[in-house]
Amino acid sequence: MDREAVRRYLAEQRDAFVAQLGEWLRIPSVWTDPAHADDVRRSAEWLAAVLRSAGFPTVEVWTAPSGAPAVFAEWPAEDPGAPTVVVYGHHDVQPVDPVEAWTFAPFEPAIVDDRILGRGASDDKGQVLCHLLGLQANLAASGRQQPPVTLRLLIEGEEESGSPTFAELLRAHRDRLAPDVIVVSDSAMYAPGVVSVCLGMRGLTDCQIDLHGPDVDLHSGTFGGAVPNPLTVLARLLAGLHDDHGQVTLPGFYDHVRPISAQEREMISRLPFDESTWLAQAASRATYGEDGFSTLERIWTRPTCEIHGIWGGYTGPGHKTIIPTDAHAKVSFRLVADQDPASVQEALRRYVAEHVPAGITATVTFFGPGVRPYLVPADHPAVAATCRALSAAFDGAEVFFTREGGSGPEADIAEILGAPLVFLGIGLPTDRYHAPDEHAHIPMLLKGAEAICYLWDDLAAHRDDVVRR
Amino acid sequence: MDREAVRRYLAEQRDAFVAQLGEWLRIPSVWTDPAHADDVRRSAEWLAAVLRSAGFPTVEVWTAPSGAPAVFAEWPAEDPGAPTVVVYGHHDVQPVDPVEAWTFAPFEPAIVDDRILGRGASDDKGQVLCHLLGLQANLAASGRQQPPVTLRLLIEGEEESGSPTFAELLRAHRDRLAPDVIVVSDSAMYAPGVVSVCLGMRGLTDCQIDLHGPDVDLHSGTFGGAVPNPLTVLARLLAGLHDDHGQVTLPGFYDHVRPISAQEREMISRLPFDESTWLAQAASRATYGEDGFSTLERIWTRPTCEIHGIWGGYTGPGHKTIIPTDAHAKVSFRLVADQDPASVQEALRRYVAEHVPAGITATVTFFGPGVRPYLVPADHPAVAATCRALSAAFDGAEVFFTREGGSGPEADIAEILGAPLVFLGIGLPTDRYHAPDEHAHIPMLLKGAEAICYLWDDLAAHRDDVVRR
Repeated sequence: MDREAVRRYLAEQRDAFVAQLGEWLRIPSVWTDPAHADDVRRSAEWLAAVLRSAGFPTVEVWTAPSGAPAVFAEWPAEDPGAPTVVVYGHHDVQPVDPVEAWTFAPFEPAIVDDRILGRGASDDKGQVLCHLLGLQANLAASGRQQPPVTLRLLIEGEEESGSPTFAELLRAHRDRLAPDVIVVSDSAMYAPGVVSVCLGMRGLTDCQIDLHGPDVDLHSGTFGGAVPNPLTVLARLLAGLHDDHGQVTLPGFYDHVRPISAQEREMISRLPFDESTWLAQAASRATYGEDGFSTLERIWTRPTCEIHGIWGGYTGPGHKTIIPTDAHAKVSFRLVADQDPASVQEALRRYVAEHVPAGITATVTFFGPGVRPYLVPADHPAVAATCRALSAAFDGAEVFFTREGGSGPEADIAEILGAPLVFLGIGLPTDRYHAPDEHAHIPMLLKGAEAICYLWDDLAAHRDDVVRR
Repeated sequence: MDREAVRRYLAEQRDAFVAQLGEWLRIPSVWTDPAHADDVRRSAEWLAAVLRSAGFPTVEVWTAPSGAPAVFAEWPAEDPGAPTVVVYGHHDVQPVDPVEAWTFAPFEPAIVDDRILGRGASDDKGQVLCHLLGLQANLAASGRQQPPVTLRLLIEGEEESGSPTFAELLRAHRDRLAPDVIVVSDSAMYAPGVVSVCLGMRGLTDCQIDLHGPDVDLHSGTFGGAVPNPLTVLARLLAGLHDDHGQVTLPGFYDHVRPISAQEREMISRLPFDESTWLAQAASRATYGEDGFSTLERIWTRPTCEIHGIWGGYTGPGHKTIIPTDAHAKVSFRLVADQDPASVQEALRRYVAEHVPAGITATVTFFGPGVRPYLVPADHPAVAATCRALSAAFDGAEVFFTREGGSGPEADIAEILGAPLVFLGIGLPTDRYHAPDEHAHIPMLLKGAEAICYLWDDLAAHRDDVVRR
């Protein structure tokens, strides 16, 4: 691939690309607000039309069970033995509240210096359009009529609502998607100037614990010290979930945690990290966590247990010395590969049952089956290809491995489609995702398109390693 | 003292006594309700008039700083060297809500079998009038014109409001009260058929613990596992207050706890106690508490720590995986002699300060100075005299020692007046104190009056041991 030709093409297309993105950003595709349902549909039709006119031979709008429209577009490789890549993104956007906090109107995109402002500029319309631009650069620089891989874009419309019915959509269309590799472009790099690839997201399972003791509030003078107090039992239950080293005590909790590799650890240690800046973001006065791990390691690579809410007894002003009837808490576990939410749920149920004394009844109610952790198979050739493509786009820069502490549906997507999933996030953490004045950094989008342009060639060149048998 | 004469007198007076009590019960002396302030004043004046016509040479109505009227009445012994006894009781009564739950109108006393029903029948008007009847029996049976001890009745009017200004009233009149012994008649015996004397009440100190962590609610994916969570810290703080044997862990907490005597323990073990009946009263399915002590010992003789309320973070429906900014709890300690509320407060403050990690700020706010525990000096001759008087009244029955788990101002009263305080409670636990259909058992009131009649002679006979020097 002639990199000079690619860059020339991208430079020539910059203004048209920005104008095209601006046009899309004018459509307020807020799926969480039913008043914007037509706009979400318009957004899908806009993208479908753009992809059709760019030459995608197959473009369809699929409707998820929720009604949210997803855009599917396919452009087969000339070589029928080339790898098939599914690119995942989304065209719905976050709500704009508080709208008065925006400097610019959220759906009237503005260009300021190197940035394009508008809801969805980075999350995720900008990143989706990079894929079109990257493909166009690939075709222009190579002179080919078809991409080097079979490209299947799937751009969903209910991501900001938590993709409630997306898995069903995937299952319904599994046969038409059938990828060798899934590429997700819906995230940010570690920091401006640090080229990075995300290697995984944590899983999650969360629940409510309800304890019931005496059937009526009791006078603590008359009964105190002689009946089990559900609040005391709750405190002991919750306190017992961690040991003095910050580890979760549930039996077997760490059995399937994959230890962080020496290579990843070394890389994390070299990432620029300023603790005082991080603490300011957290509005916290200190860090805290599992012994033997740095802050980034704790968030990215270690499972946790957090309490989100707790209540019971008398909570009004002054005092009322009762032994109350009930105690409640909301608790979650963030999980890392290869922990299984179902096993953690079972371990917690057993722990509660074993630690609740006679006289207290306990109920543990999980909010659904949980989210499985996802860890990119780091030795898959698509990971190395992504790193090479990014490094080439960013003038030979080192590509760092990062992770995210949050939880997403990646494990389900990879499982339903039966293929490895890699992250190619080309936003910046300063893009103000979900916040007022969201924007994208235009040079980053162009670099992202350049990396995408190289990635397809790289994957095609490694087809024997990439194509599933 | 001629017991036959005493009993004859009491039997003759029974109807007049019940009629007199009924008259007093018609006055709704609810000091907690400002609408009844005049009734409380009327109740005091009624009692003052009755005492005057009974022959008390000095009767005054004192006004506490709150405005609540207390009745003071003095009848000196003929012998100026006789002991001086202050009798404490109260003439204000509990509110009657829920009034619709009463079978009878609360202020229209009714006689049903051996019971007189009405608010205040047992708590405490009935017990106060027993003192008048007991004195009259003493004078009638002995043929004396003056009591064998100098009697000073002090019947306050704000007890059911927590006696907020009674200590001030005591201090203001300390010189006129100056007792050798204080007798409190405002409680119940252990059970019908079990004659008992209360030996003490627990003290109390209670507080609110407030923890503050991050200044904003944090996303547990982005920050979970890396900053201190105030709810986790709260759970660990509260759980750490007890060890696995149900003992409170605060350093020094048990240093000044007086161990229960073998005699008292043996007596408690012989009290009729049916655990299933007790659990039904507690509406609890099991007992629980400090290892090595029975349920009654736990409530009466051991200090405790109870959590009354706890709150923080997300407590609505469903889930919200935040690390919250704040966590709160209300906690109390019941104390036994010779624990000091101030020392316990200091120990808790130190415990919290030492166990809160960096990044969490903690505030411990106590609700006032606390209530000191009170233990009757069991070897004081007034205790033996009370037991003899009760045994004589109850046909030679064994008198059991009990205690109460609740907290009252006895330690302060004893300290302000500089004299030992003994309990002569002549209610029954079935009297429905504070509840609808409160009543008194008329034969119990007569037995109480009989014991009081004997007690004054007994104390006078032991004047050398009783009179303070």
